[in-house]
Amino acid sequence: MSTPSRRAAVLWLTGLPAAGKTTIASRVHRILAERGVAAEFLDGDLVRALAPTGFTRADRDAHVLRVGFLASRLERHGVSSICALVSPYADARLRVREMCRRFVEVHVATPLDVCERRDPKGLYARARRGELERFTGVSDPYEPPERPDLRIDTSRVSEEEAVAQVLGAWEGASGGASA
Amino acid sequence: MSTPSRRAAVLWLTGLPAAGKTTIASRVHRILAERGVAAEFLDGDLVRALAPTGFTRADRDAHVLRVGFLASRLERHGVSSICALVSPYADARLRVREMCRRFVEVHVATPLDVCERRDPKGLYARARRGELERFTGVSDPYEPPERPDLRIDTSRVSEEEAVAQVLGAWEGASGGASA
Repeated sequence: MSTPSRRAAVLWLTGLPAAGKTTIASRVHRILAERGVAAEFLDGDLVRALAPTGFTRADRDAHVLRVGFLASRLERHGVSSICALVSPYADARLRVREMCRRFVEVHVATPLDVCERRDPKGLYARARRGELERFTGVSDPYEPPERPDLRIDTSRVSEEEAVAQVLGAWEGASGGASA
Repeated sequence: MSTPSRRAAVLWLTGLPAAGKTTIASRVHRILAERGVAAEFLDGDLVRALAPTGFTRADRDAHVLRVGFLASRLERHGVSSICALVSPYADARLRVREMCRRFVEVHVATPLDVCERRDPKGLYARARRGELERFTGVSDPYEPPERPDLRIDTSRVSEEEAVAQVLGAWEGASGGASA
C-alpha cells in the first residue's frame, strides 16, 4: 500500500480514574512509534510528577492547559501526542481543543462502578474512606464530554478493540487510511 | 555553502527581570525560523499566562521544570527551543539540563542597577515600594550560573552582538557552522 503523508494530531483521552486511559494511550503510542510516526505519550500522572500540582478546580484546569499547550506545540512541529488525563472539566478541554489544530477527544467512558472495582492503586477505596479529598468520581465532579469524537467503554470492548478504535481516530484526523 | 545537518538544542536564557532575555530570545527565534529551522520560543511569562503560577521557590521551580520538560520533548523530536525565564535557582536549571540532550545555558548577566534603570514594566519600582513581594533581584534571590555556556552583559554589548553570540552558541550545540 502507499504511504500517505500524514499530519500530526492530538489524541486526548479523558475519563475517570482507572477507566483505562493510560493503558490504551501507552499501547497506541507504542504502535505509532513502531510505525515510525513522530509521537509523544503525555500522561497526566507523569507530568504531575515533575512538580507538585494540586486537585482544586484551578489546579486541575492549570494542569490540563499546560499539557494541552505542550501538545499544541508538538503538533505545530508535526509531532502527534497521545494525552491521558482525567481532565474532568469540559471548559478546560474545550480550551485545549482551541489551542490545537487537529484535536480528537476520546471519552474513555468506563462506568464508575467498573472503575471502582478495578481500583488498581486502591485510590477509590481510600477516597470512600475519606482519606483522599477531591477524588474524581467520588468527591470531585467529572463532566463527561457531550459530543466526543470517540467514546469507548472498556467494560464492553476489549483492550485490543479500544486500541484499534483510537488508532482509527488518529488515522482519520491525521489524514487518510493507514498503510 | 553546504547545508550541514543539524540536531535540535535547547537554548536557556536565565537572568534578572529586564536583563534582556525576551528581546534576545525572540530575535534569535525569528532568525532561526527564517532559516527554516524547527524552533519554538518559550517565554516564561507566556507560559505563566496559561495558568496562574506563584512565585515561591516551589512555584518557581515547578515553572522551570515544566518549561524544561516541554523543551526536552520538543528536542527529542528535532525541534530546538529558545527559552527565556528568570529561572533563579541553580538546582532547577541543573535538573532541566539533565532532562535535555543539548542544553545551552546562557546567562544574560546584565547588572541589577542597569535592569532597574530600564524597568520597562515598572516592576522594580513597585518592588522597591513594597508593592510586589518576591521580586527577583529586590526581594527574592537570584543564583547566577557559575559556569554558563555563554554569558552576556547587555550593558556592554549591543543587541546585535548579543543575538549573534546566542546564535553562535546554538550553532555550536546543534552541530557545525551555519550555512
